[in-house]
Amino acid sequence: MPEPFSFKLLATDGAARRGEIVTAHGKVQTPAFMPVGTQGTVKGLTPEDVRATGTEIVLGNTYHLMLRPGAQRIATLGGLLKFMNWPLPILTDSGGFQVMSLSDLRKVDERAVTFRSHLDGAMVELTPERAIEIQMLLGADIAMQLDECLKLPAARDEIARAMQLSLRWAERSKRAFEKNANGYALFGIVQGGDDLTLRAESARTLTAMGFHGYAIGGLAVGEPQEVMLRIVAETTPTLPARHPRYLMGVGTPHDLMEAVARGIDMFDCVLPTRNGRHGMAFTRYGAINLANARHANDPRPLDAESPHPAARTYSRAYLHHLTKANEMLGAVLLSTINLAYYQTLMGGMRETIAAGRFAEFCDHTMAQWAQGDLPAL
Amino acid sequence: MPEPFSFKLLATDGAARRGEIVTAHGKVQTPAFMPVGTQGTVKGLTPEDVRATGTEIVLGNTYHLMLRPGAQRIATLGGLLKFMNWPLPILTDSGGFQVMSLSDLRKVDERAVTFRSHLDGAMVELTPERAIEIQMLLGADIAMQLDECLKLPAARDEIARAMQLSLRWAERSKRAFEKNANGYALFGIVQGGDDLTLRAESARTLTAMGFHGYAIGGLAVGEPQEVMLRIVAETTPTLPARHPRYLMGVGTPHDLMEAVARGIDMFDCVLPTRNGRHGMAFTRYGAINLANARHANDPRPLDAESPHPAARTYSRAYLHHLTKANEMLGAVLLSTINLAYYQTLMGGMRETIAAGRFAEFCDHTMAQWAQGDLPAL
Repeated sequence: MPEPFSFKLLATDGAARRGEIVTAHGKVQTPAFMPVGTQGTVKGLTPEDVRATGTEIVLGNTYHLMLRPGAQRIATLGGLLKFMNWPLPILTDSGGFQVMSLSDLRKVDERAVTFRSHLDGAMVELTPERAIEIQMLLGADIAMQLDECLKLPAARDEIARAMQLSLRWAERSKRAFEKNANGYALFGIVQGGDDLTLRAESARTLTAMGFHGYAIGGLAVGEPQEVMLRIVAETTPTLPARHPRYLMGVGTPHDLMEAVARGIDMFDCVLPTRNGRHGMAFTRYGAINLANARHANDPRPLDAESPHPAARTYSRAYLHHLTKANEMLGAVLLSTINLAYYQTLMGGMRETIAAGRFAEFCDHTMAQWAQGDLPAL
Repeated sequence: MPEPFSFKLLATDGAARRGEIVTAHGKVQTPAFMPVGTQGTVKGLTPEDVRATGTEIVLGNTYHLMLRPGAQRIATLGGLLKFMNWPLPILTDSGGFQVMSLSDLRKVDERAVTFRSHLDGAMVELTPERAIEIQMLLGADIAMQLDECLKLPAARDEIARAMQLSLRWAERSKRAFEKNANGYALFGIVQGGDDLTLRAESARTLTAMGFHGYAIGGLAVGEPQEVMLRIVAETTPTLPARHPRYLMGVGTPHDLMEAVARGIDMFDCVLPTRNGRHGMAFTRYGAINLANARHANDPRPLDAESPHPAARTYSRAYLHHLTKANEMLGAVLLSTINLAYYQTLMGGMRETIAAGRFAEFCDHTMAQWAQGDLPAL
């Protein structure tokens, strides 16, 4: 089995870590944020647009791609990187989360999860082995084990059952991955809901199995931020330091910073692109709603000092107009601006962790957010 | 009145003309195609995207912009070029065509057209003077007179009435334009439906008034292509050779070539972007429907020899997938590819008119279209 995957821990500052992932398709500096390319595209953006935001790795969704255009088709066309014309690393999820969030009918048993496709109503089966096979067909640099995701709050028994099942699926995923000649890297997923004992058991068992990296799943599913951060804080010390740690589906800029402070290396989230499509900008002044009439006559850009040209070039008045007129370019520009802000934020974290000034960076960033947007003209 | 507008006829080949328009914001090589930026944006594309297709001038819609965000607001923000971040020339229409096509209630009398806004139902009045004022507020390099557009077929009396009204509005538009200190160039619009006698009278009267350029309006409104081309062929010889001629709202690649062969210099049309949003590509192989299942497994690009990277880079399979999945990037890429094809076609016309080989170019281009798309794999 080829193993062109490694992780190097370059520096720490408190629990925060500065690292580097090496993959067959390039290096990823951590802490890293992965934009979500659900259906084989980061919505509205060309690969060049995505790269220009500073992005080094994107996430692809197994659930969506297996249903359309199909994993075998993508494999025949040369894999997901080639299909999307994205030349850098890709991580694929296992489909477990979308089975929970998107299909209106699903049945989980020991062997598989069976669900109704949200596209055509067909019943589809996903086993841990099939989830790995699909991700290998996609050519993922980093594949994820199949797990069972619950919404919170949930009963402890139910959380324990799903966590135990996810551990058995982790084992099966690992065996399937190791049998496959094309695998690059496989991450296990810590489950256990909001129960610290269950989380610790999950992390311990996964670590004993041995994965290339460890994700924390089943968070950002309805629980308060403080619950999420407590679980992160308690879980990361139980994971091996020499492997990357990925907090799945998180989050706001504030979530990212707090999770990095608790030892997380990788994130993915639809927020920068989804909110961009709805007229919301993330900036160093905090979140800005471009639909607000206060921007209608404002000739200033969102952030004159942003490293990304889109944030410096287009006026708030223009972005307001595009948002109100529901113009595609508004979605394109705000998605770009938001991803660029996320990547700038990650870059700031990486730099200050390496320099031992991460706490100072966090204080400064949060003070700017708290100050809010520029006063109206 | 500043007059940074001129037109130079550089070469002719039969009735086809190769020319150059000079404006305050740059030169435009003719025959020229103007993408439509209805609401202050060529849908889905950044100004850089639009420029990269070879576009030298875009069209803005007075009707849309006067309703939202408002002409005075755009003027206060520095004009439409600055608002859109588009650094090259802009032509604005007068709003007459959209009043016909978009508002469900309108009343035309000698003084004005009054219509119900499609946005908020408010009654809005547009006079020839107001249409000029709005276009000056937008900062158009080329403004259009207000005219009354009819759908065809229409009764001769009705066509004659609208044509005569449009001539009186041309006169009022010209006076309003000449009183305004910010005007760059004003085009008159030949009306007269499908009646050659009325068209000739309109052209003669407008020429006597004197405009910077002459448009042919009221075509591509339901009549067969041969009717449109006959009117173009009969009208262009009645217009002064030293001024540009603009066929409004036209058309398909074939329309453009046939109209250039009959002496037209400028075009605008939503087809390349609108059809791009609906999965249709224009290429040298003709029109291609990317939604067709024949493309689902096709790794080939739309046109491996296109001068534009998007047409060479993305596979038909990927474009098919984006189209089926209704992904924004499909609209973005196909709009780009289509505009690039239109501009490549215009470039081919310009080059071969200058070289005296235009007829040959048309034959070759039509033979390629007739041959159709690449055979399926």
